[in-house]
Amino acid sequence: MSPLDNIRIVLVNSIYGGNVGSACRAMMNMGLSQLVLVDPRPGMDMEEAAAMACHAGDILQNRKVFATTAEAVADCGLVAGTSNRGGLYRDHSKTPREWAPRLLQAALDTPVALLFGSEDNGLSLDDLALCTQFIRIPSSENYKSLNIAMSVMVCAYELFVASGTFEPPQERSLECPSAMREAMFAKWRKALLDIGFMTNDTADHMMLGIRRILSRGTLTEKDVQILLGMASQTQWAANQLPKKP
Amino acid sequence: MSPLDNIRIVLVNSIYGGNVGSACRAMMNMGLSQLVLVDPRPGMDMEEAAAMACHAGDILQNRKVFATTAEAVADCGLVAGTSNRGGLYRDHSKTPREWAPRLLQAALDTPVALLFGSEDNGLSLDDLALCTQFIRIPSSENYKSLNIAMSVMVCAYELFVASGTFEPPQERSLECPSAMREAMFAKWRKALLDIGFMTNDTADHMMLGIRRILSRGTLTEKDVQILLGMASQTQWAANQLPKKP
Repeated sequence: MSPLDNIRIVLVNSIYGGNVGSACRAMMNMGLSQLVLVDPRPGMDMEEAAAMACHAGDILQNRKVFATTAEAVADCGLVAGTSNRGGLYRDHSKTPREWAPRLLQAALDTPVALLFGSEDNGLSLDDLALCTQFIRIPSSENYKSLNIAMSVMVCAYELFVASGTFEPPQERSLECPSAMREAMFAKWRKALLDIGFMTNDTADHMMLGIRRILSRGTLTEKDVQILLGMASQTQWAANQLPKKP
Repeated sequence: MSPLDNIRIVLVNSIYGGNVGSACRAMMNMGLSQLVLVDPRPGMDMEEAAAMACHAGDILQNRKVFATTAEAVADCGLVAGTSNRGGLYRDHSKTPREWAPRLLQAALDTPVALLFGSEDNGLSLDDLALCTQFIRIPSSENYKSLNIAMSVMVCAYELFVASGTFEPPQERSLECPSAMREAMFAKWRKALLDIGFMTNDTADHMMLGIRRILSRGTLTEKDVQILLGMASQTQWAANQLPKKP
């Protein structure tokens, strides 16, 4: 079992179905699955929720609903609340990146809740009192307040990255060995000479320029094979040129 | 000037105004301001865009619109494209966290563009061909595809965090000096003895337990002042007890 399966997203007193649905999609994108709504506002648009959840409809369908936050988190060992406010709790707030390892570690043994407040009021003091951790998402002083589904995404993203679940693309960035790279440069040197791009006098200088261009980033075997093919065909074209007298 | 001011969010062929508006809010939350739309779909709901942009309406209002991606990025030194697809570009894709320092560094000297594809088709091969960097946002194999505004948020968030713009709360986590902590424990020891919570026989053991509880996390001067106040008042109550014969 992944610790992500033990992490519960708790949306308190939410207003908009679209936000709840967006949160579902963000959760599934980041390997989370447990959604809890506390006291959702009457008249929430559940069609909009389903539309924004997109392929994460199961998370929306399987949501649990509680009347109070205390009930929603009663079995949770850690309860982390998101807030941008200062004051009493500010001293102990950390960023989602800072908290992620602690929350994942705890989730190996106990359910862990992440609380997100309503679109208009955020979390109440009573909700914050239930929290063992306070999360402050980094944001601009010019506009601190994130949309609630965006807050869910940032926290879920940090947990997902910290969980090590994501496997980066396999075939990345293997540098081509020097011998193969040199064979390619040798082929280009002859082809560029024969096609008249440079002369024996200028060849060393030009080839250094070309080497510099091709050394600024990774150059894989596949890259070098493409460059070899281009050099071969250029050489073929050079061989078709009428011989100089 | 912050390098963030030189980073352009380019939404290509977007369909939904709500997503464009959400992207605006995410941008302002993360200190970005330059929005470009390329060939937006006819009939985009701009009222919904304004509603989702919330207090980031200026970014929406000041958007630039181009017919082609090539025109939108013509002056950009780096052009980073987001894609979850495999294939030709996969080898060189990195996560937003990996690319962020490079993009910020470049943005000190040149406009930098981040491209996001449409809700239905993502970026085209022609768009990807314009890119100098490929970004793969970490996401679950079970549901790789993020909502476009969420993708903007994750990339903008990583750039904002990497920019060092965010100042964490000032007064965080200064540990109380030992002498003050010890004075507090001494006060509690006497109060708990006098109130009859423990005896001289059990006091050492109990106080070790209390020390352990209060040593698991940071204990600030403010925390210790609260605990000192509690101990003082407990001592006062103990002093009111009828003297034992």
